[in-house]
This record gives sequence, structure tokens and C-alpha cells, in this order.
Amino acid sequence: MRITVWNENVHESRGDAIVAQNYPRGIHGAIAEGLAGHFDLAEGGADSVRTATLADPEHGLTEEVLDATDVLLWWGHIAHDQVSDEVVERVHRRVLAGMGILVLHSGHYSKIFQKLTGSTASLLWRNEGERELVWTIAPTHPIAAGIPNPLVIARQEMYGEPFDIPVPDELVFVSSFVGGEIFRSGVTYTRGHGRVFYFSPGDQEYPVYHQPEVLRVLANGIRWAAPTLPLEEQVAKHAPHGWFEG
Amino acid sequence: MRITVWNENVHESRGDAIVAQNYPRGIHGAIAEGLAGHFDLAEGGADSVRTATLADPEHGLTEEVLDATDVLLWWGHIAHDQVSDEVVERVHRRVLAGMGILVLHSGHYSKIFQKLTGSTASLLWRNEGERELVWTIAPTHPIAAGIPNPLVIARQEMYGEPFDIPVPDELVFVSSFVGGEIFRSGVTYTRGHGRVFYFSPGDQEYPVYHQPEVLRVLANGIRWAAPTLPLEEQVAKHAPHGWFEG
Amino acid sequence: MRITVWNENVHESRGDAIVAQNYPRGIHGAIAEGLAGHFDLAEGGADSVRTATLADPEHGLTEEVLDATDVLLWWGHIAHDQVSDEVVERVHRRVLAGMGILVLHSGHYSKIFQKLTGSTASLLWRNEGERELVWTIAPTHPIAAGIPNPLVIARQEMYGEPFDIPVPDELVFVSSFVGGEIFRSGVTYTRGHGRVFYFSPGDQEYPVYHQPEVLRVLANGIRWAAPTLPLEEQVAKHAPHGWFEG
Amino acid sequence: MRITVWNENVHESRGDAIVAQNYPRGIHGAIAEGLAGHFDLAEGGADSVRTATLADPEHGLTEEVLDATDVLLWWGHIAHDQVSDEVVERVHRRVLAGMGILVLHSGHYSKIFQKLTGSTASLLWRNEGERELVWTIAPTHPIAAGIPNPLVIARQEMYGEPFDIPVPDELVFVSSFVGGEIFRSGVTYTRGHGRVFYFSPGDQEYPVYHQPEVLRVLANGIRWAAPTLPLEEQVAKHAPHGWFEG
Repeated sequence: MRITVWNENVHESRGDAIVAQNYPRGIHGAIAEGLAGHFDLAEGGADSVRTATLADPEHGLTEEVLDATDVLLWWGHIAHDQVSDEVVERVHRRVLAGMGILVLHSGHYSKIFQKLTGSTASLLWRNEGERELVWTIAPTHPIAAGIPNPLVIARQEMYGEPFDIPVPDELVFVSSFVGGEIFRSGVTYTRGHGRVFYFSPGDQEYPVYHQPEVLRVLANGIRWAAPTLPLEEQVAKHAPHGWFEG
Repeated sequence: MRITVWNENVHESRGDAIVAQNYPRGIHGAIAEGLAGHFDLAEGGADSVRTATLADPEHGLTEEVLDATDVLLWWGHIAHDQVSDEVVERVHRRVLAGMGILVLHSGHYSKIFQKLTGSTASLLWRNEGERELVWTIAPTHPIAAGIPNPLVIARQEMYGEPFDIPVPDELVFVSSFVGGEIFRSGVTYTRGHGRVFYFSPGDQEYPVYHQPEVLRVLANGIRWAAPTLPLEEQVAKHAPHGWFEG
Repeated sequence: MRITVWNENVHESRGDAIVAQNYPRGIHGAIAEGLAGHFDLAEGGADSVRTATLADPEHGLTEEVLDATDVLLWWGHIAHDQVSDEVVERVHRRVLAGMGILVLHSGHYSKIFQKLTGSTASLLWRNEGERELVWTIAPTHPIAAGIPNPLVIARQEMYGEPFDIPVPDELVFVSSFVGGEIFRSGVTYTRGHGRVFYFSPGDQEYPVYHQPEVLRVLANGIRWAAPTLPLEEQVAKHAPHGWFEG
Repeated sequence: MRITVWNENVHESRGDAIVAQNYPRGIHGAIAEGLAGHFDLAEGGADSVRTATLADPEHGLTEEVLDATDVLLWWGHIAHDQVSDEVVERVHRRVLAGMGILVLHSGHYSKIFQKLTGSTASLLWRNEGERELVWTIAPTHPIAAGIPNPLVIARQEMYGEPFDIPVPDELVFVSSFVGGEIFRSGVTYTRGHGRVFYFSPGDQEYPVYHQPEVLRVLANGIRWAAPTLPLEEQVAKHAPHGWFEG
């Protein structure tokens, strides 16, 4: 499994104190480290994880990087419009060709999620550090394997319905908040040969990405989103013209 | 529109004080009266509503009654096992042939709902008269037309996930409760040529079926569940053998 | 019902003989005329239909036209890239706000369908004037009401799987062709508050849009895709911030 | 992986010549042998396969056998009504508790499939040994991994729409036949914690279960349907009462 964790990395770069306390090596760093318990990431191991950020050349998402990525994780918040359309097109093409993608939290407003879904992805929100309960709706789904029901997140930003997304292929999680709001917090889609998983828990102001159950969801999501076939076979199936000379 | 409201009518028959106060003419009576604002139920009107209960001969659901029913509403709670298998089979056959059915609240454990879904329909519950917020998830669905988002029910029994049902064809409503539980409170299915709508708000201990927004949901549900074609045409489409002499 | 039929109108403008024979007043003209049997389009009638084409200023899809359109039909084939991005954005916004859209035949490759679906919408094709059988998969769906099963189209271009689209909300029709190919020929989606219906039969080289059953599908689709609420109410539901002061 | 292949075994027991030629050790025997290339079935291997038939005591499906089964395959045709209701209930309970089930070909009319789906599962059919093309609709689905598109079955009984089943959770395959019929030949459901895969190719009169691609579909289906968690954990998630003392 070749994983790339992309983070806008703007809150961190600005030196925001709360964010620095939660994520001293960045949200991307925390996620990459947290995945170590779920994949074989040691030197010479079967799996690998790399990180990329907005400030990198081509945002760190060159053709070479994407060609060597099975699953991409995407975290962004306040700089969605700084992501170049060219990189968005490139990521989109690669997803259609079979790369999995996990869109995280405020990434719902990213260009790539809007492009994949055809929707605005607008939602209700309120940031008061409320308790979020993440309920499993699809108990047999591999992304829910081993996740407590409910998963309790002590402090979190509220995201609520209406969440302007297409009807998901699969509704895995629905969350509730103390104010009574609910939110489809774990949803899947397919686009072309690529699999898409959106998971909402996770904010720069709370240490959500250090919580073991959350990291397990991400690890499950990565395994679920990985291509079912090597890319070459995916593409071959995608273009079967001439199959039949009747 | 020919509507039949079926109610177990056991709480009412026992003379339970709270139930009698909420529903002096029975839950079936309250629903039938409440629909008057949504259908043309006057003498000679285009629509009609009748009621039937467990204690009636054949539970009031004879072949004649079902043949004259476009949409059946089903409320039951403590006497599911007293419903005869023969009547359940009859209702099931009629649903497959095109009759719509609305299964209400504790009707989730009815024989007919279990037979239609193939599931146990088990759920969490707690009866403390909590506030329920019913959130619209499918804003373009005709069942949600004109329903406030959220619909606030002041006092209600809590029903919570995990709700052991098949993945719905359409998820229309999801509720939250004060304890933090969530519930898929409005879901649709099709079985054969029949449409099925399950709606959870509504309990004998609370006057939920007098609330105008709830009655509007029921009226919307009835219109949605009504056969799209006259029964004869449905059956003709159902058995198209011999369509093609290639 | 306020209907707008948009047609690229390029084959017709070029004076192609077969197209002129099939559609002397254009594909848009044929569809608009064919809908007369299904809507009240007479002077002063309850419904209205207008047409618009690529060559019109702003392709005939100004803000004023879209504001006065409940359902838009879209036919395009060889000039998708000549449709301005600005108009595509405008149509997209309007769909999210509640306008229905029917995308027809080769419109699968239009910018608006790709934007709504996030997919390439690529498919197999072969143009040999084969018989297409359109099978109803969702017999209770209002779009299938009154449609023979199968609907037989004598001569048609073959469109085949793999069809690179998202999993539909509803699969209404699947077609087969003489070569053995199959195709999801009638699929629905929702995006925001808008409903989307893609229907594949219909090509400039065959008189498909004169076939009464095909026109009935279009009429059914228009009724299904129409906003369930007036636009103002849709928008109000779409932005319920501040709903709850708990 | 602990696999149990159940076969009615009535055609074989009657000594039908064609069936004996196709399946000298029974359909169950052919499938069990064919799975050897996909699982570690050697003595002491990680996986195991057993067979059971109608004539066995309790049809070979005792509590002990089911408790030791991760995935059950079900083939039946002319003796559905000889399967005892008690065994059907037992299998149903076990599916809800997490056992996967593959229902094959004419098993669509089995009691267990009707109970799981709530439908009649009626369909069109014609037995003339026609070519069936099995098209992949869900290219990223693990059941489709490595399957040619289309999978060509030289001679097969025709099964056609309308197929009276609930809307599938996932539509994996759609077949076409020479007569122009189409059929949803690979569909999935979940019921409780159990996963259900129906796959239509396979008839006693044709050697379909010897075809390597068909066996790969079955192997893929078995892996997909296997419980995502050990049964004990499934059950624990199924009954989370008392999770929260708010």
C-alpha cells in the first residue's frame, strides 16, 4: 500500500498556537505517524506513506507522485482556492483511473471533492468543542470493522445536515452532536475505477487525529479505497473496445 | 386514494389512561381524522379512509378490503404475534401486487415488516419522553415536501441505531434524541410492485399523531406509496411472458 | 410546468440530409411538438415549452430563461466544447437550486453531465441501426409508468457498458442490443435540490423522438424531475442556519 | 475460510444423463473441487470446504455445521418445498448473525432467498442453451476482480427481467441473452450482519460450474461475503444496549 497524505498545512505554517499544540508535525505528520500502527511502514516494509503540502512545487502532487500512490488522503480548510486547477484535474484523472481518495473533515469544500461529487458540499457548522458520537450504520462494512459503536469524540466542531452531497453509494457512519444536529459523517462513492471515502471527524483545533479509533477508521478506509486490481488491469477493463466481433 | 388505517388497538381497548387521553378514538381514529386535511374525504369525495383493527374478523383485512385499498397504514406494538399468518401472507401478496404500505413506529417489529424486509428490525429504545429532531436527508423527496427541517417533536420515545433493516432504497429522515442517539426514522423500500415507507415517530404515550407536521408526512407518504398504475396494469407488467417471438 | 428544450442544433444547421428528414424542425422542435400530447401547451395553458440552441445568444440559456424553467432537456453531440463554461456554471447552479434536467443520448458527454456526475461518462458505441430493447428495471418508478416492457426501438445507435457513471440513485431502464451489449439507458440522480434523469435512446440518424413511447418517457421524466416545492421554499430549506437556539 | 456448499442434489440422484455427464460428483462436488484453486483446501490448510445435501439429516445444515461455516453456497431447483422451514429459519438466523451466503442460479426461488429478500424472485426464463454475456457494471467491486468483461458463457438457460427482487445494495453484473433479454445476474444485499450475493449463471444442464471465470466469481463472492469480524464481535456490536449512561 502506497499512501500519500496531503495537507494544506496553512494553519500550521502560520504558527497558530492551538494547532501547533495539537499537531506539532502538522496534521499530515500526525496522520502519517498514526498509520504506522496499521501498515508495514518500516524501512523496506511492504507499505509506504509520504506527505505533501500546498507549498510544495505542484503541491507535492506531481504525476510521478500520483503514479506511485494507491490511496491519497486530503485535508484542506482555508486555502481551497489556492489549489491549482491543473493539480485538481490531475488528481481527478488519477481517481477515475483507480486511485483511492479519502477526503477529510473540511476537505468537503475542496475543489477535488466538489469536482468528484458535482455538489457544493455545503453544511451546517458550529465550533464549540462539542462531543460527537459517530454511529455505525453499516455494521458489515470493512471501514467499520473494529470501531466502537458509537465512537465517542470528546471535543469536535459540529458539522450538521443538510449536507449537500449526492446520495452516497454506502452510508457507513452518522454522527450526532450535543445541539441535536446529525451528520452523514462517513460516506462512500465510486468514480470511474476509483473509490472515494469522506470522513468528517477531524479539525485543526482538536486532537482528533491522535485518537486510536479515528486512526483505525482511516486505516480501514485506506484498505477499502485501494485499487482492487493493479492499475494496468483497471485501465484495460476501462477500455474494452473491440471485445466482440459479432 | 383509498386508504385503510390498521391499528392493533390493544392499548386503547385496555383503557390505559394516558393512551385514552391522547387518542380517545384510538390511534387509528386520530390518524384517519388527521388525514382529512390532506385528502378529499367528504361524502362522495374522491378519496376515502377506513379503519381496521386486530379484533375485527380477519383483523378487518379481508380480501375485499385489501382489493379496495391503495395504501395501508400499519400500527402495532404489543400484539404482533396475535396477527394471523394468513392475513400477513395476504397483505404481503397485495403489497407485491402494488398496494402501498406505511409501517408506523413500533410496527417495525410486526410480522409484515419483518417479512417484507427479511430482517429482525431490532433497535435501541428508551422511553423517557425526550425531544426528537427529525432531519430531512433527502430534500427533494416528495415525502419531505413542506416538512420543516428539523421537524421538532417535543416528547417521544427514543428509537436508536443500530436499526437492523436492509439498506433503504431512500433515506428520507434521520432523527436525533437528547441522549445523543440517532435513528433512520424515515426509510423507503419497494417490494414487487408495492412501495413501503417506514416512519418511526409516533407512540401511544405521546400525542404525536395530532401534530400537523407528522400528519403531513403521513399524507405525503400515502401519495408517494400509491400505485403508479391501476392494479390491472401493474399485474400485466408483472407477467410479460411471451412478449417476444424472436 | 415550464419546459425548456435545449439542442445543440449543429447537425440540423449543416443540412445533413438524414437528420433533416428525421427532424425537419430540429430535434428540439420534434421533442417540443411531441410533448404537446402530454402537457397543456395551448395558448394560455397551464404548461409551456420553449426551445434554445447553441447559436442563440448565451446559447438561449440566460438567467431569465433558467429562472423561468422548471425542467431543462439537453441534447448535444458534436459541439460540447463550444458550450461556454459560464453557461454550464449557470445551469449547474440552477440545478442545485432545484431545476430538473433531462440529459439525452449523446448528451452524456456534455460538460453539464460531466460536471454533475464527476465522471467521464465514456461508453461503448457502434452505429449500425440496430434494434434496441429498453427493459424496465424499476416497475414502480413514475418514469416507467405506461411504458411497454420492453420498449422496442427498431433502429438505433448502440450504446454499451462499461458506462462510466456514478452508481445511479435509481436504475429505471437497461437496454440490450443485437450484438449482445447492455446499457443502463435510464438512470436518475439528485444534485442539491435538483433532479437529473439521463435517457439514452435518441439519435439524429433515427426518428426515435417521434416514437410515442419515447415521448412518454420524456414526459414522465419531466414530471418526475420537476421541483417538489416552489424554488423559494427549496432555497429556504437549503439554508436553515440558525434553526435552533437550544 | 470455512465454506459449506449446499446442493439439493435431486437431479443428480435421479440419474439424469445430461446432469451426470456435466456433474458426475454433483453440482456441489464440482463447485467444491473448483474452489481448490482459490483457497488453501489441502489437509491442514487454512481454509476448508464441505458439502451438504437435501437428503442428509437436517439437510446437512445442523447448528454445528452452520456454527462452523463462514460462507454458505446454496443451489436448489426442483425441491425447494422439501426444505424444512426449521432449517430455513436456522440459516436465516445465522445469516443475520454474520454468515455470508451465495445463492446460485435457480436458488432464486428457494425459501431462504425469498425470506431474505421479502420478494417472490420471479423472472422470465427459456431454456435453449443460448450464449450469455455477463457484463461487469461495478468495475471496482471485489467480486468483479479479474473477471473478463464480458464473461462469455457459451450455453446457458436464459433468465430475464423482470426479476422480482428488491433494489440491490450493489449491482455487480448484468447479463444479456441472444433473444435480447437482460438480467441482473450478480447482485448483493446485506441482512443483519450477513452478506448475500446472488449469481445467476449455472444450470444442471450446462457445465457452467467448470468454467474457470465462473469459479473465480464464486471465489470472489465467498471472500466478499465472509464476516468482517469474528462472529463474537459481530454479535457484540449487534447488541450495544447500555453503551451510554448520559
